[in-house]
Amino acid sequence: MRKEFRAGLVCPTAGLAPGVTQANLIALPRDWAWDMLLYGQRNPQPCPVLDVSDPGVPSTVLAPGADLRTDLPLYRIWRDGALVDEVPDATAAWRDDLVAFLIGCSFTFETGLLAAGIDVRHVTAGCNVPMYRTNRNCRPAGRLHGELVVSMRPIPADRVADAVRISARYPAVHGAPVHVGDPAALGIPALDRPDYGDPVEVRPGELPVFWACGVTPQAAVVASAVPYAITHAPGHMFVTDVPDSRYQV
Amino acid sequence: MRKEFRAGLVCPTAGLAPGVTQANLIALPRDWAWDMLLYGQRNPQPCPVLDVSDPGVPSTVLAPGADLRTDLPLYRIWRDGALVDEVPDATAAWRDDLVAFLIGCSFTFETGLLAAGIDVRHVTAGCNVPMYRTNRNCRPAGRLHGELVVSMRPIPADRVADAVRISARYPAVHGAPVHVGDPAALGIPALDRPDYGDPVEVRPGELPVFWACGVTPQAAVVASAVPYAITHAPGHMFVTDVPDSRYQV
Repeated sequence: MRKEFRAGLVCPTAGLAPGVTQANLIALPRDWAWDMLLYGQRNPQPCPVLDVSDPGVPSTVLAPGADLRTDLPLYRIWRDGALVDEVPDATAAWRDDLVAFLIGCSFTFETGLLAAGIDVRHVTAGCNVPMYRTNRNCRPAGRLHGELVVSMRPIPADRVADAVRISARYPAVHGAPVHVGDPAALGIPALDRPDYGDPVEVRPGELPVFWACGVTPQAAVVASAVPYAITHAPGHMFVTDVPDSRYQV
Repeated sequence: MRKEFRAGLVCPTAGLAPGVTQANLIALPRDWAWDMLLYGQRNPQPCPVLDVSDPGVPSTVLAPGADLRTDLPLYRIWRDGALVDEVPDATAAWRDDLVAFLIGCSFTFETGLLAAGIDVRHVTAGCNVPMYRTNRNCRPAGRLHGELVVSMRPIPADRVADAVRISARYPAVHGAPVHVGDPAALGIPALDRPDYGDPVEVRPGELPVFWACGVTPQAAVVASAVPYAITHAPGHMFVTDVPDSRYQV
């Protein structure tokens, strides 16, 4: 998949390369790296840090030989907290002072949900997962602050416990849901208008289940007016070489 | 317990305040804080970071109202990688540029072992847990490097699986053992001469079981010649207000 993305393929990564861990990317100037690493420590459910690069080095122990500037399907470029570009190759936007953080992604435990016979709607529908900003603030760290972002999967009421149990075994990729059933309690006005990704159908007998999402650092980039950042585009993740089992407890 | 330690009581903390989380302390100059936080991210089994203070602020969200300079039973003061003092009160040694890290401690899951009827030898014997430097190096982070330190508990062969299962549920306080049964494979020449703490008897039918230990950052202070640090004395932990269940998965 990394080779195809490097060659120009652009698509969401849910359901691709099942069995290996996927990761969110956020690369920030060195001067902001302490704030980001501490933001991850203080908010481990939305921001579980799987690896941190050395400054300016676009590589990771999670996938030796991969290039973080080219091997994701789609990138977002941010200046002063504003989205300024979306590109399939971030080489021109890369800087020598950037520290790259790879953050766990809930796509990782979808393999376990599917294996248990739980439909993952956005995979079945062939679209991106719906993601929403919430009314819950993360614990600030230095200059970084912002709200929790969640992903949503509709789960049949009689499988909610299974979905919790299965995802809870993967705390490094967001773990158990943060909320079950009531979008309004999270400040989400309408499920059919996600802030990121695509809407999916919630069928009768299903509950919307919300997991912490690795787009949360992008919300912090906006709220905190970070001077410069490169991130993945929501749902367009970095596919690592690490088997899911590494993060199973 | 914190009040008694503040008043001058000095003793190891294993078995005290059962049901709440205990923590290792390492306070480093701000200039070294990035290295330490990254060392924790890269070595989460020995160095699971539970909280990080703001520079110069000797308090923690893990125990509102506590003073990290006085509320541990015994402290170690380090200069240029050498142990220079051991004191029951670190107020005079505190500096405004110190960032305090609280790191998970295996004493936390001993409550679960005891509840399952597994004898915790150092608690029964009323002594400190034995701890050993190993031949395994941690993954370096910036200027920090050093070997893994482990704690050891003798476990009856027919309860080893239970001890693994119970401790594995607490990854934030070192989780499952790193090794079962063979001290030589970890480079430990003699179980009766621990590098820290007290020796305990390993009885016939028992295996020595080794868990990653929060003294590992102190080994890094030595190996990396950190210019200044304040830590807890091994086995003399910070008792938090956080119930063990917070860290159970």
